[in-house]
Amino acid sequence: MKKISILGSTGSIGTQTLDIVNQYPEQFQVVGLATRSNVELLAKQIKQFRPEIVAIGDENKLGTLKEAIASFDYSPILLAGEEGVIEVARYGDSQSIVTGIVGCAGLLPTIAAIEAGKDIALANKETLIAGGPVVLPLVEKYGVKLLPADSEHSAIFQCLQGVPDGGLRRIILTASGGAFRDWSVEQLKYVTVQDALKHPNWSMGQKITVDSATLMNKGLEVIEAHFLFGMDYKDIDIVIHPQSIIHSLIELQDTSVLAQLGWPDMRLPLLYSLSWPERIYTDWKPLDLVKAGSLTFREPDHDKYPCMQLAYAAGKAGGAMSAVLNAANEQAVALFLAEKIAFLDIPRVIEITCDRFTSHNSSTPSLEDILEADNWARKMVLMATEELGKTSHFVSLK
Amino acid sequence: MKKISILGSTGSIGTQTLDIVNQYPEQFQVVGLATRSNVELLAKQIKQFRPEIVAIGDENKLGTLKEAIASFDYSPILLAGEEGVIEVARYGDSQSIVTGIVGCAGLLPTIAAIEAGKDIALANKETLIAGGPVVLPLVEKYGVKLLPADSEHSAIFQCLQGVPDGGLRRIILTASGGAFRDWSVEQLKYVTVQDALKHPNWSMGQKITVDSATLMNKGLEVIEAHFLFGMDYKDIDIVIHPQSIIHSLIELQDTSVLAQLGWPDMRLPLLYSLSWPERIYTDWKPLDLVKAGSLTFREPDHDKYPCMQLAYAAGKAGGAMSAVLNAANEQAVALFLAEKIAFLDIPRVIEITCDRFTSHNSSTPSLEDILEADNWARKMVLMATEELGKTSHFVSLK
Repeated sequence: MKKISILGSTGSIGTQTLDIVNQYPEQFQVVGLATRSNVELLAKQIKQFRPEIVAIGDENKLGTLKEAIASFDYSPILLAGEEGVIEVARYGDSQSIVTGIVGCAGLLPTIAAIEAGKDIALANKETLIAGGPVVLPLVEKYGVKLLPADSEHSAIFQCLQGVPDGGLRRIILTASGGAFRDWSVEQLKYVTVQDALKHPNWSMGQKITVDSATLMNKGLEVIEAHFLFGMDYKDIDIVIHPQSIIHSLIELQDTSVLAQLGWPDMRLPLLYSLSWPERIYTDWKPLDLVKAGSLTFREPDHDKYPCMQLAYAAGKAGGAMSAVLNAANEQAVALFLAEKIAFLDIPRVIEITCDRFTSHNSSTPSLEDILEADNWARKMVLMATEELGKTSHFVSLK
Repeated sequence: MKKISILGSTGSIGTQTLDIVNQYPEQFQVVGLATRSNVELLAKQIKQFRPEIVAIGDENKLGTLKEAIASFDYSPILLAGEEGVIEVARYGDSQSIVTGIVGCAGLLPTIAAIEAGKDIALANKETLIAGGPVVLPLVEKYGVKLLPADSEHSAIFQCLQGVPDGGLRRIILTASGGAFRDWSVEQLKYVTVQDALKHPNWSMGQKITVDSATLMNKGLEVIEAHFLFGMDYKDIDIVIHPQSIIHSLIELQDTSVLAQLGWPDMRLPLLYSLSWPERIYTDWKPLDLVKAGSLTFREPDHDKYPCMQLAYAAGKAGGAMSAVLNAANEQAVALFLAEKIAFLDIPRVIEITCDRFTSHNSSTPSLEDILEADNWARKMVLMATEELGKTSHFVSLK
């Protein structure tokens, strides 16, 4: 029986984690739940999983939450605000914290959990992409484990079990290629929001689906892989694998390649991030290679996916540059989803933002530096967008 | 630096092992060499690798060998006959014995090596297929490791590193499908020896190439996997994978699938059987998934490949039945290569032989029982061939 707490319990990662707990109640027990604002679903989760502690990020919702659970036959500790979420992260005897919070908001609670000696089931990508230079030394200091809960890094982590120190020589991240893998660069000029939201294999949120179309998601995963597995950027490759059956691969010193495969289903990496090093029996549909059909691979087209190169460059620049990249991308994608900029403008405003940050970057940023850089980048994207709009430099403004 | 001895040093496994030693002399040192009769090549190997002890299986060749190495600037211990080969297996401070000897002739030296506390780089398939019931208790007793040196079992073994006890739930052996994977059952009636010797991916000996065309090689691998990894036959599957890039896969309790991939090259599993648990750097051509092309999979056709089912049945029967299956297959393939029986007669004479052995089988055979069963099966195939020939029951006699 493993005790866990979930940050972001009403989001995609949180609800899937609770599905797993629901399905395997002898394996997992929920100690704490935290979410930003979805009171209705949070109340249902409290009723079903009876956590000891609960936090609602939006302090204005605390009253509604209290009412919603007033009739329950027990009362958890109820907290609100950022401090409340942080308290859930470090509270009690939970062994593992699922970090399903989106954005830099996940950074402080994750750090609190690490300082409380808890393992992290890592679903908040800012923890490493933005916070890497600060978080990794803490992971080391407190002797906790960062267990990737997304499919690609879980694949690599699974393959790495039993590989001796120094045995790894290359990481190969697979990418579905996203919504536009069969479009030409020319066609990409006229992409609509609707086009960008059709992901071929995975069902995900809007932001991540656009990231998957620009391949920025893969670029960000390269940076995560760098921090998680200590690999040089030159030893992390991306290959387009449209079927999303091979979730990633590693190449060892002797040229042997190991891969992890499965149907596209987030529950599997989530489960392993909680069960590690054990393998818990599930009755989920086993992979059938014959039904999976042909597995194909192609080189990613760098002209078509400039975000990928921006990510490698930001990763190599180090310091807070990957925080800037990530924040600029979030802001740019939001502008695209609001039909303020075109699809091909996403990499353009990110590039301008990263370029302008270069002179501000420090190789050993503090947590404050990182959070500031994140803020700075969001504003800079808005400024750059305005400038470019005035000079009609955009590919196609809506 | 690992000290190794090689049994069958002039064969395919032996020469490839010595290629590895030659390429990585800081990693490996040759203590002993043994081979059956190829004096000329053995002398060259002695000159190059300077083993402490050498055995030639064919006693009549001892004189020629002595002459061949008389002018060398050192003299290894020279032995001859089966006892000599056994002595090389158990001699000195070699840590690992490569068992590249073909057939039941490999059994006694392998047992001697195990009793001397040496790990086995396992390339002699009779060690488990015939000798499993006798060899496994010895492996346990002497605390040595059986390290598979063939590509499929090495793939499984590599994937299993870091999998916790009880984590494995299914083994999936990949099969190229051999020379006739695109032929119909009807066409198989008219297969010539020449047809059968065209293997699509691997360059191997005649016997193993025919086994690959009948899929008996895969059936025999199922039996080996049963002994090596302690899996029930119902949990060992075969899938046709014509490209031979994925060398085999394992399915874990949570449905996660791990695979080992690489170009078809025997050196990689051989190297890992010697370097385990380490991964030694090589400059061999790394796998390129884009160049490898589509990876495809299909169910094996049981009508087309009856040998596969015969192997499962023999494995499940236990005792010395898999020794009988293996010996009957060797004899049947020899008759096919000599154009005495047709391709489709191979499974027929094996089935008759296994059927007739049923009443003689014991669930706990001794080594003598196994060697006797092997002999008995070879004779029985000849008898069955004669009987069937008289009654014109053959598919097509040449």
